[in-house]
Amino acid sequence: MKILALDSSSLVASVAVVTDAVLTAEYTINFKKTHSQTLLPMIDEVAKMIELDLDTIDAVAVAAGPGSFTGLRIGSATAKGLGLALEKPLIGVPTIDAMAYGLFGCADLVVPIMDAKREQVYTGIYRFLAQDGAYRMETLCPQCVMGIAELFAELNQRGERVMFTGDGILVYQKQIEEMLQTEYCFAPPHLNRQRAGAVGALAEIYFAEGKTESAADHKPNYLRLSQAERERKEREERGRV
Amino acid sequence: MKILALDSSSLVASVAVVTDAVLTAEYTINFKKTHSQTLLPMIDEVAKMIELDLDTIDAVAVAAGPGSFTGLRIGSATAKGLGLALEKPLIGVPTIDAMAYGLFGCADLVVPIMDAKREQVYTGIYRFLAQDGAYRMETLCPQCVMGIAELFAELNQRGERVMFTGDGILVYQKQIEEMLQTEYCFAPPHLNRQRAGAVGALAEIYFAEGKTESAADHKPNYLRLSQAERERKEREERGRV
Repeated sequence: MKILALDSSSLVASVAVVTDAVLTAEYTINFKKTHSQTLLPMIDEVAKMIELDLDTIDAVAVAAGPGSFTGLRIGSATAKGLGLALEKPLIGVPTIDAMAYGLFGCADLVVPIMDAKREQVYTGIYRFLAQDGAYRMETLCPQCVMGIAELFAELNQRGERVMFTGDGILVYQKQIEEMLQTEYCFAPPHLNRQRAGAVGALAEIYFAEGKTESAADHKPNYLRLSQAERERKEREERGRV
Repeated sequence: MKILALDSSSLVASVAVVTDAVLTAEYTINFKKTHSQTLLPMIDEVAKMIELDLDTIDAVAVAAGPGSFTGLRIGSATAKGLGLALEKPLIGVPTIDAMAYGLFGCADLVVPIMDAKREQVYTGIYRFLAQDGAYRMETLCPQCVMGIAELFAELNQRGERVMFTGDGILVYQKQIEEMLQTEYCFAPPHLNRQRAGAVGALAEIYFAEGKTESAADHKPNYLRLSQAERERKEREERGRV
């Protein structure tokens, strides 16, 4: 089985190829360039380097949200374009699930946080459970948008040690230090951002379970309205009063 | 601080740039091409993509062994060449330490295994200890070359759950299933091979501790004699009898 995986849900652009449970290639950039400049050239570069005929892949996996609206649109548009052209199914992998899966086997609650602005984060709470010689990633709180104070209240109530990952750490580190009453730590550089390798590894499992969709059907999951949509809705509601 | 990190200790070729605790770029290929064909073009590709002026890096980090003799020579030669040309220090990161560090925060004993042929593995035994709001990677058995049966005996005696990582899994999976008496599992695709990102993350810590060396002084640590050296030694010893 061969899966091409993409993640452009944040500032990070990442491309990976997973072939029969082996990460054949992974290319990740965390740089100011926009994904429209990086994602396709990165796919092209990787395909050339591993002599990959894109016709031979079984599916295109993509981090399907939440995340940056523009980033998600570029990722999904790229995945849909490839899926339609190559006649391959798509696998939408929840962004926050893939971020948590990057810390496979972690002893703590794994809590990815992406800054969603306005004191909110895209987040979720996960735990790795050892079971019959394998780990299962248990979702204690599925990915959602949440006020940062609400997340702290939830984690304080659970009282378990937390491993944070994601670019939200940069924004909320001070608040974590001040408001979190449980033990916590921050994932190190190689494990604190999105990786298409983790998207591809989860997608292999989804593919085996038949969890695919057609390129035409695929839509990113923004989890909330964009700023423009929110403002229009507010204007409309004011107009109604 | 900016570190260029390389790992070509196995079939995997990997290049990363870590900038002030952020993984700015990582490019990893697990493909049949030899490292002499891939490593320099990969550095060039990454430098172009993130507009990296190599003169601005603070050090070159390299997975310094053990591993494939040819792979280590290419990695070290590349790192030495860059270090000499750019007048930057080198940071030699033990290959097996970096592999274990890839599973930061893991609940189990982390045991990387690289096939060293002749029923031997390059390995080590590590544990992540939560301490004062951070994890410390404790080395229970430093990287070494060991008979696979001896490793099983050691792990059986410890009796703790084990997370295996590394390409040695492909070779020794059946023996692990038959001979290991403790619980164990295998790291998933995105965490079961060398990553220059992990080399760079460890190198940042070493750099802060002043653990650098000059490009002229750097040597890879093969941990044992090459096949050619071993055979010559055996011939010489037979000659002496």
